[in-house]
Amino acid sequence: MGRVTERRKVLRIRDGAVSTRPDTLVAEEPLEIRLNGKPLAITMRTPGDDFALAAGFLVSEGVLASAADLQNIVYCAGATADGSNTYNVVDVRTAPGVTLPDFGLERNVYTSSSCGLCGKASLDAVRTTARWPIADTPPLRITPELLAALPDRLRSAQRVFDRTGGLHAAALFSAEGELLDTREDVGRHNAVDKLVGRALRNDGLPLSRTILMVSGRASFELAQKAVMAGIPVLAAVSAPSSLAVDLAAETGLTLVGFLRGSSMNVYAGEDRITLQKPAAQT
Amino acid sequence: MGRVTERRKVLRIRDGAVSTRPDTLVAEEPLEIRLNGKPLAITMRTPGDDFALAAGFLVSEGVLASAADLQNIVYCAGATADGSNTYNVVDVRTAPGVTLPDFGLERNVYTSSSCGLCGKASLDAVRTTARWPIADTPPLRITPELLAALPDRLRSAQRVFDRTGGLHAAALFSAEGELLDTREDVGRHNAVDKLVGRALRNDGLPLSRTILMVSGRASFELAQKAVMAGIPVLAAVSAPSSLAVDLAAETGLTLVGFLRGSSMNVYAGEDRITLQKPAAQT
Repeated sequence: MGRVTERRKVLRIRDGAVSTRPDTLVAEEPLEIRLNGKPLAITMRTPGDDFALAAGFLVSEGVLASAADLQNIVYCAGATADGSNTYNVVDVRTAPGVTLPDFGLERNVYTSSSCGLCGKASLDAVRTTARWPIADTPPLRITPELLAALPDRLRSAQRVFDRTGGLHAAALFSAEGELLDTREDVGRHNAVDKLVGRALRNDGLPLSRTILMVSGRASFELAQKAVMAGIPVLAAVSAPSSLAVDLAAETGLTLVGFLRGSSMNVYAGEDRITLQKPAAQT
Repeated sequence: MGRVTERRKVLRIRDGAVSTRPDTLVAEEPLEIRLNGKPLAITMRTPGDDFALAAGFLVSEGVLASAADLQNIVYCAGATADGSNTYNVVDVRTAPGVTLPDFGLERNVYTSSSCGLCGKASLDAVRTTARWPIADTPPLRITPELLAALPDRLRSAQRVFDRTGGLHAAALFSAEGELLDTREDVGRHNAVDKLVGRALRNDGLPLSRTILMVSGRASFELAQKAVMAGIPVLAAVSAPSSLAVDLAAETGLTLVGFLRGSSMNVYAGEDRITLQKPAAQT
């Protein structure tokens, strides 16, 4: 594939000085994900790990929970005028017996289509589709010092970002802070799907002894993906949203935000964080 | 609505010192957009300007091009058990005579569903749905100095970001660098849709004398939204993707990235940038 980056000519302006030169950009291409031949979703992603991306997406949607649920994944070819394969359409075939949720005819998201759509309904949808509770036994115990070391490890693993500045990163760490896997993508949700999909294909779900670290903010969607993969701790460099915090609190996910230097905010699941002294009320 | 931010309790850890205190988070809620009663898309957004968001989304999809295309927009109520209105579902009714594109049964994106899905097909889809060419007459002429002043103006207008750190921002500037409008949202694409939707409702499309500035990266999706609104210049603080650059080059959009201090990269449409001296080949 080799399409993670692409070269384009760029006009550089630096303090009034102008030059033209080739520049390395992060590649972005559409990927259509089909489920048993039926189009389900299109995502704009950085090419590479497409089978993992599709598998991880279907973990988030509650379709797949183990490698045994998966019959195979193929690139879909042949519908272009010249019959070529663009490597931008994948078809995921589920194993016999896998129950498919009712996605509805006009919908490719898991969220309720009722007119009463609300944050609460979004939380309920995750709770009802989750394949396992977040129940790490024995419970993970993580020190703030261990968490504080993760951003530097994530950054040093972000190889494409260094060249393009254009990628989001996500990484899985062990409870001891060891880097297990990392992915980069133009879409942060894709980077997480790729991590989860790789774990699924190695029959590693639920990821109940891991920490998921993301390079930017923690949205509801990312918290949902952590919950669906059975990940007990989500740590983000930037701010979480209200609904991400609500989902974490409801499901028992530990949600850490603004993880920078030796500082961090814990928004939910603080029982997994080992504190040297009890919290002072201010 | 007043749900732009929400308060949650947070455990703060600073250099080993621990405290609990209330924290202000950016609000995130799902919004379902219906078109003439038919569910079309769900987006996770920061509540507020929902009618503008829906209208702007439909400009991007090629459905709406002027205020006259719009009959009305309403919040949809009544399907919850208690009959309440969650203000998370809007129905956009088009005026008689507005042609609706064929979104297909299983699809809520504009992109081709052919098996030959690729970057080229995505560019073609934008070109065929665009309601006007990017044809600013007389052509906009913008100095690097004017562009360099925009990030500070955007930042000073980002009021909610200052409180939460959790929002993306987008702003429209005049060709003279005057701030015309700005929106913030958990999703950058939503912030742009809100700007475009507000312009549509004021019958201000195409936005052919404006500069769109975004707080982060320039993806294909953001470039597409600029093109569909007739905006001639898109400037981003961070990196563009390869497909965003390709779309800009094909449609005549000026695309500026890494706009920081007095530095910037121009990836396409450099004819609109007034240079004091010609570019040196390096």
